Amino acid sequence: MSTTHVTIREVALRDGLQIEDPISTEAKIELLEAIVATGVTEVEATAFVSPSKVPALADAPDFAKELKRFPEVAFSALAASPNGARRALDAGLTSIEYVVSASDSHSRSNVGRDTAAATAAIAEIAEVTHDAGATVEVIIATAWDCPFDGPTPPERVLRIVDAAVTAGSDRIAIADTIGTTTPGRVTSLLAQVRPEIGALPLGCHFHNTRGAGLASAYAAVLAGVSRLDASVGGLGGCPFAPGASGNIATEDLVYLLRDSGVAVDLDLDRAIAAAGVAQRLIGKQLPSALLRAGDRLHAPAHPS
Amino acid sequence: MSTTHVTIREVALRDGLQIEDPISTEAKIELLEAIVATGVTEVEATAFVSPSKVPALADAPDFAKELKRFPEVAFSALAASPNGARRALDAGLTSIEYVVSASDSHSRSNVGRDTAAATAAIAEIAEVTHDAGATVEVIIATAWDCPFDGPTPPERVLRIVDAAVTAGSDRIAIADTIGTTTPGRVTSLLAQVRPEIGALPLGCHFHNTRGAGLASAYAAVLAGVSRLDASVGGLGGCPFAPGASGNIATEDLVYLLRDSGVAVDLDLDRAIAAAGVAQRLIGKQLPSALLRAGDRLHAPAHPS
Repeated sequence: MSTTHVTIREVALRDGLQIEDPISTEAKIELLEAIVATGVTEVEATAFVSPSKVPALADAPDFAKELKRFPEVAFSALAASPNGARRALDAGLTSIEYVVSASDSHSRSNVGRDTAAATAAIAEIAEVTHDAGATVEVIIATAWDCPFDGPTPPERVLRIVDAAVTAGSDRIAIADTIGTTTPGRVTSLLAQVRPEIGALPLGCHFHNTRGAGLASAYAAVLAGVSRLDASVGGLGGCPFAPGASGNIATEDLVYLLRDSGVAVDLDLDRAIAAAGVAQRLIGKQLPSALLRAGDRLHAPAHPS
Repeated sequence: MSTTHVTIREVALRDGLQIEDPISTEAKIELLEAIVATGVTEVEATAFVSPSKVPALADAPDFAKELKRFPEVAFSALAASPNGARRALDAGLTSIEYVVSASDSHSRSNVGRDTAAATAAIAEIAEVTHDAGATVEVIIATAWDCPFDGPTPPERVLRIVDAAVTAGSDRIAIADTIGTTTPGRVTSLLAQVRPEIGALPLGCHFHNTRGAGLASAYAAVLAGVSRLDASVGGLGGCPFAPGASGNIATEDLVYLLRDSGVAVDLDLDRAIAAAGVAQRLIGKQLPSALLRAGDRLHAPAHPS
């Protein structure tokens, strides 16, 4: 195994909530308290994007003010443009995620410009962020498949990787935005990405839409990825497909990694409890497996 | 990758149905027709066990008569004793699965005798089966965890493996009966089992109860397993835990393996269709991911 410790970044408050009906800032704080109690060290708190496009995150500046109550956690926020990054930095965030879609059609649909234009903005965002004493992570969306353009040629991913490395990105993440990838394709793409990024931390972001999210996450760990995004309860499923899975569930990932001999910072029981809070606040059954089945009864056996 | 082709054995008709309210033999035939249409080459048809303990499979002798209508498929049936194996052979089955629990408490609970006694019967079942010109597979249940005894020491699994090899078992399978294992533990146990079995075909049987079923299945393939059990729709969940996942879903497994560059015999669209038949006949939502999300829209990309 290439990785002995994985940093799980909790994304329920951003990716998990962004397509749900908006919940109050107070409800978000209740969920955040449950999330912080898990022992997680990194939390994606919100996004500084158009409030009209993502009403569920329209309270980003107000919510950002609450984050200082949890000094034990490193918070990040997503931005889709240099202006969004400036707003996040003004709100006190010290870790920025900048998303670039590797497919032109998704990029245009999402942010109104093609991949090359979005890639060209990496340098400005890195400069703005570093000037403010913050760090920036470039997240490459639709890295395996685009809902409009089909399979993404790996060269398109590698071009963004190279631009991110050149611009001084502090971290890089590869995202399966629509939940279509599988472990064999994860292994294949990461084998091409890894040599390009040197010692930069590499993360992955998977959705469980076709059941392969956890298998893909484990393949990524075997390929040397040390950072994985996950969402308590598996929050983040499509509201138009009842029961459809969203992000991989934090508690399911903790269980899988813990029992596979990969250290994580989160306590499983508390992650299950946080998933329960998320389910109550959202008011519908979430696709988490551990929330239903619970931990196994006995202590971990013959560790691998 | 250690395995370039995986034989999927469809178990919906046995493991999938055994805890459900009984459905008619006619309904089983309708499901079987949909299953055969997928192109699957092996189907676990039923079990010859106590009709009072498993009423859903009480029609085993009658159902067995229908199997000759599908000469393109190799059918098997499960037996828990030499007498059960004889009944299966008398009914025309030519492939017998004999289950031995690696934990004493599960073995006693399931068949009224401990692991050693159940292991001792392997030789008689192999003899009876081979005398009838049939083949036998020894399936080792509770191979990772027992609901009563906790984690299963690998030595207990290896003792059954050795007895099966000595008795001339034609195939061996390792089963995660209660859905608790994870890919790291799969890799670890299979590394101990593989050297003991020589050239015998090795299979695995996983449940997705804690979300790790497909990840465990892929780890098994990487470890050289060439046979995997799966159930259309993921049929086989616990009826007392709504939404709880049962066997790994055939269509989810086909999707994952196909896109990971591992050949399978089944057509994905027809596997999804068979899952739909299963869901209609059972009358409740099954935990399949592909049944909800469907195949991805575009042809497989840059194969690994």
